[in-house]
Amino acid sequence: MPHHRYRPAHERVEIPEIRRTWPGRRIERAPLWVPVDLRDGNQALAEPMDTLRKRRMFDLLVAMGFKEIEVGYPSSSRTDFDFVRHLATSGVVPDDVTPVVFTAARRDLIEQTFASIQGMPRAVVHLYTATAPVWRDVVLGQDRAGLHALIREAAEHVARLADAMPGTAVRFEFSPEVFNCTEPDFVLEVCNGLTRLWDASPDRPVIHNLPATVEIATPNLYADQIEYMHRHLERRDAVILSVHPHNDRGTGVACAELAMLAGAQRVEGCLFGNGERTGNVDLVTLALNLYAQGVDPMVDFSDIDVIRRTVEECNRLPVHVRHPYGGDLVYTAFSGTHQDAISKGLAHHERAAAERGVPAGEAPWSVPYLPIDPADVGRTYEAVIRVNSQSGKGGIAHLLQVHHGLDLPKALRAEFSRVVQDATDRSGREATPRELLRLFREAYMAEDGPVTPASLTAGGDGFHCLVRHDGRESRGTGADPAAALAAALTAAGVAVEVLWQGGHPAEGGAVAYARCRVGGTPVWGAGEDADAATAYTRAVLAAVNRALAGQRR
Amino acid sequence: MPHHRYRPAHERVEIPEIRRTWPGRRIERAPLWVPVDLRDGNQALAEPMDTLRKRRMFDLLVAMGFKEIEVGYPSSSRTDFDFVRHLATSGVVPDDVTPVVFTAARRDLIEQTFASIQGMPRAVVHLYTATAPVWRDVVLGQDRAGLHALIREAAEHVARLADAMPGTAVRFEFSPEVFNCTEPDFVLEVCNGLTRLWDASPDRPVIHNLPATVEIATPNLYADQIEYMHRHLERRDAVILSVHPHNDRGTGVACAELAMLAGAQRVEGCLFGNGERTGNVDLVTLALNLYAQGVDPMVDFSDIDVIRRTVEECNRLPVHVRHPYGGDLVYTAFSGTHQDAISKGLAHHERAAAERGVPAGEAPWSVPYLPIDPADVGRTYEAVIRVNSQSGKGGIAHLLQVHHGLDLPKALRAEFSRVVQDATDRSGREATPRELLRLFREAYMAEDGPVTPASLTAGGDGFHCLVRHDGRESRGTGADPAAALAAALTAAGVAVEVLWQGGHPAEGGAVAYARCRVGGTPVWGAGEDADAATAYTRAVLAAVNRALAGQRR
Repeated sequence: MPHHRYRPAHERVEIPEIRRTWPGRRIERAPLWVPVDLRDGNQALAEPMDTLRKRRMFDLLVAMGFKEIEVGYPSSSRTDFDFVRHLATSGVVPDDVTPVVFTAARRDLIEQTFASIQGMPRAVVHLYTATAPVWRDVVLGQDRAGLHALIREAAEHVARLADAMPGTAVRFEFSPEVFNCTEPDFVLEVCNGLTRLWDASPDRPVIHNLPATVEIATPNLYADQIEYMHRHLERRDAVILSVHPHNDRGTGVACAELAMLAGAQRVEGCLFGNGERTGNVDLVTLALNLYAQGVDPMVDFSDIDVIRRTVEECNRLPVHVRHPYGGDLVYTAFSGTHQDAISKGLAHHERAAAERGVPAGEAPWSVPYLPIDPADVGRTYEAVIRVNSQSGKGGIAHLLQVHHGLDLPKALRAEFSRVVQDATDRSGREATPRELLRLFREAYMAEDGPVTPASLTAGGDGFHCLVRHDGRESRGTGADPAAALAAALTAAGVAVEVLWQGGHPAEGGAVAYARCRVGGTPVWGAGEDADAATAYTRAVLAAVNRALAGQRR
Repeated sequence: MPHHRYRPAHERVEIPEIRRTWPGRRIERAPLWVPVDLRDGNQALAEPMDTLRKRRMFDLLVAMGFKEIEVGYPSSSRTDFDFVRHLATSGVVPDDVTPVVFTAARRDLIEQTFASIQGMPRAVVHLYTATAPVWRDVVLGQDRAGLHALIREAAEHVARLADAMPGTAVRFEFSPEVFNCTEPDFVLEVCNGLTRLWDASPDRPVIHNLPATVEIATPNLYADQIEYMHRHLERRDAVILSVHPHNDRGTGVACAELAMLAGAQRVEGCLFGNGERTGNVDLVTLALNLYAQGVDPMVDFSDIDVIRRTVEECNRLPVHVRHPYGGDLVYTAFSGTHQDAISKGLAHHERAAAERGVPAGEAPWSVPYLPIDPADVGRTYEAVIRVNSQSGKGGIAHLLQVHHGLDLPKALRAEFSRVVQDATDRSGREATPRELLRLFREAYMAEDGPVTPASLTAGGDGFHCLVRHDGRESRGTGADPAAALAAALTAAGVAVEVLWQGGHPAEGGAVAYARCRVGGTPVWGAGEDADAATAYTRAVLAAVNRALAGQRR
């Protein structure tokens, strides 16, 4: 592959030498999140949202708690314009939510933008121009001075139109597009010029949004660029430093996080990382990354599946099964060691919560392989452990317990896991909890065999048992049901010793497990019945029949 | 949401204070990539690969150029064991490829692992144990000393079995699982102990693989942890420092990259980021990120779609449409400004290559919004620009040119783009190149109208034209076909002035464009014909008919 066609980032852009502090800092609060799903995200869809889908997305974003929402590029299409008008006239924008509208730096487009927000109580007008050298040279045909003049003129026009619209509290945002490829001194010159032109003040700050429009370097370089701007932007307390990372190198989330360390106060992105090409940075991941650090994300993800479904329906694009926090498989473990650790971790969590006297859903979370409690985002534990040939006894036992109330003795868990692994190795597929139960019943609860079901009665002198073996009836008496059964079996010529027995109540009665020595060989059996005593005899009978049929393990 | 349940990373793990150098360093060469698709990736699939799919994956990895490949966890399942045996006995492992086999630190599992590699000329035996406090306490029930002893015993057994297998050149790898949550001094104690125990030397180095098994912090902390290890590992020239990031926080790629800056020499991951939960770090993105920096990735991605299809078939999981470098939409632009920039950028690239006298595929790449040339990974330009209501004149013109050979005049591009936008705004859908052509023909090449097709002949005194209008025939003569047609139209009572005409050869003959003033109004028409002259008259006729039918724009 002709790698010589490409140049490293440090040869393509000026990376200022800075005294960097960001690698040693921590993120201690959520930035202002600004979803751009209705603009940047929408522009990247084969089938852009119609008004109905836009409205669904808008309502979702409001319900999640976003306070600033980019609602469209009103001069780019009829649909966008109409939707902004819909918001302006229908009264659906809550008082604490500010819509943002996006426009290129062209007189007619700016005018159309202002026409769209007429009647809104407040709005951010977001002006953008590409500023990077390749764009100046190849696309715009402008040198730095020419481009700066063009931006200034547009910004003046924006200010004039805002003044002429006193009913709307207009704030201003500027994006030097492809910021990360632009000379830092040029960005500073342009941004600081606008800060002055728009007369930014702490109570009416201007937003300078610095996009990594196309990712071109490891995320530490973006952080350096942001920290440089953070230190050199004029009237810093009158400027909201915003970032807008994309994901071409798969490092959009890291760029946003390191940029926050470097001074960014506001992050633009999309839910689940929709957006042109590889997408905008994913706000879901960013917010829940903060959550997992104990920082209030300031957005509500308590039912992530509802959010995901809505986003999928609006964008007509799927969220990947491995997408952080929201994918179908991200709380799931197939591997045996992971399952074992999770199973132990969940049990430990329950105990620890009980010891503290708090509900499990409130107790500090520290379960192996699960960065957050799935329940916090509305997921159940059902999908956490799934069984296939890569799985082990811990996971299998966990599923039998959670789904069917079967609490297998430890030694039986190990043995049954080999039964399951044989089956899944052969099928090549996952075994559902229902299939696990079927496998368990087939293996350990055999009802038919040489010895047929016995009657069991309790008398004054203990338990009496009747079995049929090879057509002959035999009786036995004992202090407990299993002993009575063993005596009957011995009478029938089958030497049985019950090595261990145990059981527990279950739906529909009781389940019993028995480890018996039959003809010298130890073998497991299990039984279930409405009556606990009968369950025990069934367990012993099953063990005997398995042994007589040669199914010893 | 109960964010108070979680603690920030710096309270959960010991992050050593270090004099960090990584933020100022650059990645100048590819690390040793080690795909773990056949082990870690496979363990995360609902339907693990069977031998056939494993073999397909293995062959793909070899063909791509990977030199060290983790081929399984032979003691975990029959399928895994059988596959490693298949590799050991079938001779399909090339001489320059080293298989890696994975095992837990248990005597019987280690023995099964060695049994699986019997007969292989070389192999890496990869021993792992979870070392983090939560795992020690909740899962393993071991303190530091107990766990260290257990690891040492296992490592001794590994060394013994390797000695007993002189036909196989065995090297050793150790993974302190959940490294990123483990006390750094404990990791150092264990790793340095193994370096000595395994008698590592520069010509037989040991691999210490430091997994971010579950991501728990911003990627700069992982880099700090790796740089700390890089500085403190003993016999540093006899140790290959390896990393194994996961992607729970969506920052796996960043963790790997920053770790490389911090001293990592080897990276374990999966193609397209498959793996337990959110997946292992994606080797495709990592390698192509280097490529885009002008660094030889040492892996071949020249047909990324074949790679993707194979991976999708082996894993039975899709690659997302926005996945970096390999997704369906990642070289695609729908937005008008992006299309315009790309279209200009591609034209500029062609010119620049021609000026240098090199093929376009060899010339330095610098096209807006396209981090790499799609052709380098086997993609065509066809999907780069796609048109919907978000698109503009640049993209539409580009598609008409590339797919249909129509090179519209600039003024007509702007006008036609409004036709397209009306249509896509109404349909809510994408317009394919074929639909664009249909829209263009319907709008500008109307064949029926008040004036019906004329005959055109060339004589000694110029061109002669015949038209029918309202049932009457009229004739005209002129120096060129359009002038002759205009004269005939004037004779028919239709005042026409040809303001501009132009055209170009096209498949099947020629295409012509004409801007005419008809009854005082300027209007565009277009025509195509085997004969260029006739194409011009058709263009004028179409303009006239559009004007007479009131379709002025």
